Amino acid sequence: MKTGGRLYGIGVGPGDPELLTLKALRLLQSAPVIAYQSATDRESIARKIVSQYLPGNQIEVLYHLPRALEPEKAKSIYDQEVEPIADHLASGRDVVVLCEGDPFFYGSFMYIFTRLSDKYQTEVVPGISSLMACPVSLGVPFTYYNDILTVLPATLPTEMLITHLLATDAAAIMKLGRHFTKVRDILHQLGIASRAKYIERATTTQQRILPLDEVNPEEVPYFSMIVIPTKQKL
Amino acid sequence: MKTGGRLYGIGVGPGDPELLTLKALRLLQSAPVIAYQSATDRESIARKIVSQYLPGNQIEVLYHLPRALEPEKAKSIYDQEVEPIADHLASGRDVVVLCEGDPFFYGSFMYIFTRLSDKYQTEVVPGISSLMACPVSLGVPFTYYNDILTVLPATLPTEMLITHLLATDAAAIMKLGRHFTKVRDILHQLGIASRAKYIERATTTQQRILPLDEVNPEEVPYFSMIVIPTKQKL
Repeated sequence: MKTGGRLYGIGVGPGDPELLTLKALRLLQSAPVIAYQSATDRESIARKIVSQYLPGNQIEVLYHLPRALEPEKAKSIYDQEVEPIADHLASGRDVVVLCEGDPFFYGSFMYIFTRLSDKYQTEVVPGISSLMACPVSLGVPFTYYNDILTVLPATLPTEMLITHLLATDAAAIMKLGRHFTKVRDILHQLGIASRAKYIERATTTQQRILPLDEVNPEEVPYFSMIVIPTKQKL
Repeated sequence: MKTGGRLYGIGVGPGDPELLTLKALRLLQSAPVIAYQSATDRESIARKIVSQYLPGNQIEVLYHLPRALEPEKAKSIYDQEVEPIADHLASGRDVVVLCEGDPFFYGSFMYIFTRLSDKYQTEVVPGISSLMACPVSLGVPFTYYNDILTVLPATLPTEMLITHLLATDAAAIMKLGRHFTKVRDILHQLGIASRAKYIERATTTQQRILPLDEVNPEEVPYFSMIVIPTKQKL
């Protein structure tokens, strides 16, 4: 039997605090400890999303993971970063880990889950992913009927991106950052640039939607996406 | 300028009423008219999910769409089915359309959106999709780092399913129903059956998780999914 505190991984959605689920809100407010990730020099985005709901008497645990880290390097860093969370659980305190978007969809919570869920009772609450939020914010029906959808990291080599884009009905291209120009050029080459929609920081107060060719490649943030919706007419 | 009532399409999530977002709940309770889909002989799943939140004084509009309809046939049926919704909007009444999962992700709301959003002010609220809910209910981290994810309808031809499954890191196979046996055999053929997880009616009180080879192909419901999570170790 598992003893100690309970571990919760809750998706807090893409940015709009109202896109939290009722379940995430309930758990968020019921635990004595909350934990969240932040780049070392910035405010935690996940904490900012839920800040208005925090009761104010919780212990807060910050963990750090530099972005775009190779998986092998990430492993050893996470081994260290989960320790304060594990200590609270061992002491019998429930810990709610905040996750931007959805915890199991490219989420950093998965590193915590794989390290602690064998030992502690664990519950995960799905969240609104940017994959759903971006098409909605863009106002474009995304996939329907028998469409194939492919989610592609922009970090992939050009040939691989082309192969997948040719084989799919709809696509989302994530992790654009410094790979934006490569992706934009591929979309033009394949003749699908006019269908492609660019959005950054969807559902936040800083949300921006721009025509693909008006995006400044030097200013593409991590939280951006190109959505290629179904070409089927409904 | 658009006049008349406002049209809302709100995702109500996969089944657990607590997976509604705060925004969906607010809009749901604020409109004089709600609309939802149902197979002609069954209770509406979307309405059932939110039933405990309904204030009890709303006009309810039911629309029908037989499942697995060819897009061309669906078009003419939807032309008719949106009429009662359009009438309420024309009369100045806001209408909230309930959508299982997410409205723009294989959702029937898209048919309503394409017909009415040009004429009436429209707002869409993303919902928790089964794509996020199923891996969470299965307890399997789904995609991470630079994974490619492909969402495949089981209705695709065998060769096409094989090509896509070989080219992706993680996959979700939807619309299983009578195509289950074909998909299961492909997964064995490709040697990935042991990674594949089967779930039906995720997050509802009827949720079932079964080993792939213990699923009775005669009893696979529409609301089922096979999840093939990343094989990367975190």
